[in-house]
Amino acid sequence: MKQNFAVIGLGRFGNSICRELVNEHQDVLAIDIDETRVNAIADVATQAIVANAQDEETLRSLEIGKFDHVIVAIGKNIQANILVTLIVKELGVPDITAKAENDTHARVLSRIGADHVVHPERDMGIRVAHHLLSPNILNYLAINDDVTMAEVKITSPDFFGKSLNELNFHQRFGLTVIAIQHGNDVTVSPAGNDIVQLNDEISVVGSTKAVDELNDRMTN
Amino acid sequence: MKQNFAVIGLGRFGNSICRELVNEHQDVLAIDIDETRVNAIADVATQAIVANAQDEETLRSLEIGKFDHVIVAIGKNIQANILVTLIVKELGVPDITAKAENDTHARVLSRIGADHVVHPERDMGIRVAHHLLSPNILNYLAINDDVTMAEVKITSPDFFGKSLNELNFHQRFGLTVIAIQHGNDVTVSPAGNDIVQLNDEISVVGSTKAVDELNDRMTN
Ligand SMILES: Nc1ncnc2c1ncn2[C@@H]1O[C@H](COP(=O)(O)OP(=O)(O)OP(=O)(O)O)[C@@H](O)[C@H]1O
Ligand SMILES: Nc1ncnc2c1ncn2[C@@H]1O[C@H](COP(=O)(O)OP(=O)(O)OP(=O)(O)O)[C@@H](O)[C@H]1O
Ligand SMILES: [Ca+2]
Ligand SMILES: [Ca+2]
Ligand SMILES: [Ca+2]
Ligand SMILES: [Ca+2]
Repeated sequence: MKQNFAVIGLGRFGNSICRELVNEHQDVLAIDIDETRVNAIADVATQAIVANAQDEETLRSLEIGKFDHVIVAIGKNIQANILVTLIVKELGVPDITAKAENDTHARVLSRIGADHVVHPERDMGIRVAHHLLSPNILNYLAINDDVTMAEVKITSPDFFGKSLNELNFHQRFGLTVIAIQHGNDVTVSPAGNDIVQLNDEISVVGSTKAVDELNDRMTN
Repeated sequence: MKQNFAVIGLGRFGNSICRELVNEHQDVLAIDIDETRVNAIADVATQAIVANAQDEETLRSLEIGKFDHVIVAIGKNIQANILVTLIVKELGVPDITAKAENDTHARVLSRIGADHVVHPERDMGIRVAHHLLSPNILNYLAINDDVTMAEVKITSPDFFGKSLNELNFHQRFGLTVIAIQHGNDVTVSPAGNDIVQLNDEISVVGSTKAVDELNDRMTN
């Protein structure tokens, strides 16, 4: 179902949201105070407007209250970010996402009614740090504080050229193998006699500690 | 094993990398041209220095070439970002991560020898857009272009109060259930008679299209 989105603030983050939503066939109104930013997205967005979103009358005349989702992606100007979030809340937007600079800012945004508060640079910084520390973990998804699904690249001769039965991840690491990717081919729920090869990417689930241990075994 | 990291550029992204690496007990040198940014991280980083990283002599005197990893997290000044990446490469750093503003910039960085090129705002924008479109998909990990692991929140009465056997995700969606999270408890490799309850978060693997279909079934 097509929905109406308004993205306020067209920095790198707001710009990316706009593009991805349009890619997914949604209607997107793009707003920025800076004309250059608006021109850069004009061919992509359903509508693109130069406006100071801190001006309540402007947002009212754009009927912002009728949008399904508003994303406040104004960055460095925390005051503008908070004020705009407050205005769109008061105009009745049912689902508001706002970008926070820090924890205090995040608490303010939640308090005034933002439904989702995001920290793009902080979260990506954490991901990049983990990737540098565990280069064989290509990607991960934390199920809860203790359990992780991860994609691990097999680079150690202790692991490749062997079957899952021989490798016995369950016994040795407490890890369950969900999938094996060889090149671009993926085998979901692999069998015990499936062989793991050099540079295969295996998806596992288990304790975060066990996933880290498996990564360490690839490099040391 | 403790490694030496240098983070150049202490915006929100660089700052977050610094903090996470220190959390993980690594040695981190933090560098920014702006004294306020350096002071803000001084208590966290192993060492924090005010310097213009475009000055090769400064980087040489800091013996940057001896660091295991350098992260160039300078943002808006693309020229500085590229020049600094080039200098640290020439000084012999074996692993360089650099932040790119756009695709052209990313190609330049790879060409001059950056080992990892990252686009924090772009990637997080894509994630946020997907989350807005598929609110029941709490988190996902793309194994390849077609296959995804995802954590899906169960909110539809068609799904809760039933066992995995009854729900038969494999037959109906082509999805394999890897784990069921109930509150903070996770059951990995659940049995067929395990019951899915309201607000449980189930982890599945299968085609990206099937994952989207499951999300749609939660809301429509
Ligand atoms: N009052 C306002 N009304 C509309 N747009 C605004 C307003 N204030 C700031 N913006 C726009 O918000 C955008 C994002 O702001 P800024 O560049 O400070 O954030 P950022 O967090 O550094 O961005 P990025 O997403 O690139 O990391 C800018 O294009 C800016 O022009
Ligand atoms: N030549 C330089 N030497 C050292 N630090 C620099 C240099 N040029 C810029 N920086 C620093 O890099 C940091 C990040 O730059 P900037 O704020 O432009 O990027 P950004 O991408 O908007 O940051 P964020 O990570 O917050 O999104 C700033 O703290 C800035 O002072
Ligand atoms: Ca709401
Ligand atoms: Ca979860
Ligand atoms: Ca940014
Ligand atoms: Ca993969």
